[in-house]
Amino acid sequence: MKRISVGIDIGGTNTALGLVDVDGNVLAQDSVKTCADVNDEVKTIADTISKLLQSIEPVEVVGIGIGAPNGNYYSGCIEGAANLHWKGKVELVKLMRQYIDVPTFLTNDANAAAIGEMVYGAAKGMKDFIVITLGTGLGSGIVVNGRLLYGHDGFAGELGHVNAIRNGRICGCGRRGCVETYVSATGVVRTATELLSESMEPSELRSIPNSELTSLAVTQAANRGDSIAKQVFERTGEILGRALADAIAFSSPQAIFLFGGLAGAGDLLFEPTRRSLDENVLSIFKGKAKILPSGLKSNAAILGASALVWGELNQN
Amino acid sequence: MKRISVGIDIGGTNTALGLVDVDGNVLAQDSVKTCADVNDEVKTIADTISKLLQSIEPVEVVGIGIGAPNGNYYSGCIEGAANLHWKGKVELVKLMRQYIDVPTFLTNDANAAAIGEMVYGAAKGMKDFIVITLGTGLGSGIVVNGRLLYGHDGFAGELGHVNAIRNGRICGCGRRGCVETYVSATGVVRTATELLSESMEPSELRSIPNSELTSLAVTQAANRGDSIAKQVFERTGEILGRALADAIAFSSPQAIFLFGGLAGAGDLLFEPTRRSLDENVLSIFKGKAKILPSGLKSNAAILGASALVWGELNQN
Repeated sequence: MKRISVGIDIGGTNTALGLVDVDGNVLAQDSVKTCADVNDEVKTIADTISKLLQSIEPVEVVGIGIGAPNGNYYSGCIEGAANLHWKGKVELVKLMRQYIDVPTFLTNDANAAAIGEMVYGAAKGMKDFIVITLGTGLGSGIVVNGRLLYGHDGFAGELGHVNAIRNGRICGCGRRGCVETYVSATGVVRTATELLSESMEPSELRSIPNSELTSLAVTQAANRGDSIAKQVFERTGEILGRALADAIAFSSPQAIFLFGGLAGAGDLLFEPTRRSLDENVLSIFKGKAKILPSGLKSNAAILGASALVWGELNQN
Repeated sequence: MKRISVGIDIGGTNTALGLVDVDGNVLAQDSVKTCADVNDEVKTIADTISKLLQSIEPVEVVGIGIGAPNGNYYSGCIEGAANLHWKGKVELVKLMRQYIDVPTFLTNDANAAAIGEMVYGAAKGMKDFIVITLGTGLGSGIVVNGRLLYGHDGFAGELGHVNAIRNGRICGCGRRGCVETYVSATGVVRTATELLSESMEPSELRSIPNSELTSLAVTQAANRGDSIAKQVFERTGEILGRALADAIAFSSPQAIFLFGGLAGAGDLLFEPTRRSLDENVLSIFKGKAKILPSGLKSNAAILGASALVWGELNQN
């Protein structure tokens, strides 16, 4: 019987589920609204898994992997996730196993992306690498010696909250100058707004109300040659390159993968990032760590979550 | 027969050697001048080990651990160490094994200190911690899941060269603003000099020629209540606390140990460091990682190097 793992990606709005084989083929998938009550959520997930299992040939479910904001690998709990309605400490793994009693692993979405990259993506065969997820914020999954770096409490790998600019932009975490206030979809919009205020240079971005400005609009403007929009990516890449230079001094990875919507800007982002990294990295690390796009093209969140299961089974 | 490991600490001026049992007792030790030629050095080390072995009851030598500047664990080589006379890439482990053919491990001095802390010191039983060595520069050994973080190339853990101040002090590495230009014995002297220039406040440090100013003199002045000297430690601790806040966001350790001469300043350094860490760390990490003094009191360098052997044997 074919062996599959269930990959579940819980987001603030939707929960995506898929049945994935060891080669990364998604045999069946679905998406449901994330429930306001966690008990409803778990029941909905279990029902959806049953439905998906009935839609394909019989398989053996070897485990469930869940990626969710603030998901803690050690405790199996989600605690204080800003974008979820569930209050307090939610024992998600325990609740899930009341419905489906298979090995179940939980971690945050960036860690799941890193394991996905290692199991199915461009980090196959690598033992030391970092995945940077560029969404509303900046997440990171750090792999050291073939294993995710969870740290003492399970929350390691918060590169989005390393300081980039002393007394810089206000961050959602309550502090100032965190990397993600500059390097993220939100950060790009903030930088665009800042640059629009700094000069009177014409720009198509001036015709978009601030509340409607998106990183995609900035990307498209830059691709059409808009000077302000191009400068936004220069600044973003410069700050990301400096942050990565420091990350390399820490864990000396073989590669750093950029994942998520903003990474789709391609050379607009990669080129200044690589240049800034090269300018700022310690000489013994120069030219070593490559900045690469993720190798996970579609269903990345489901793949990442399901990869947690294969990743764990490979280690034991 | 008692099992011992040989710990060797190679410095720019002296090489210290010791025979150490699994409990961290140094059964015999010696110190020799570091030779300008590496072949002479290896022969001198081998002769000294023989002499030490003859001075005690018969033992089984299970391995040799070497801590040296730029020592690379993977390659067994020293490459481009600024403070050693040996040019090019020196195959130290290979040369050593021509004299004594036992498992031989090489790493840099900060990594050796971290393993020493785990095997014999205050990090016993810990799986995730960081050791910061405060000497002429700032070195670091990062332990993740019970193993040293070597990274892809063996050079991970260069926290002394993470950026602390954008466009800050010139560093020996050729860049600007590295943490070690502020937080190290040398950094303390530079900060003292800077503070003496910033105000006309009286200070006993004004009577010491700049070329004779040391971190010990600053420590002693601070202990006598000298205001400028106390401010030096405030600034040093503030920058160290910020750097540690970022290191915690990376690897979320259980504790961070401060090791080396400058750590002997005690509360003068620890108190502002802890305060700055608490002010700057991401809220989910607040109060978690403790800033502690090293538990290795004497022979720390020999112990650290010898611990490499026990650390490796425990893993296999």
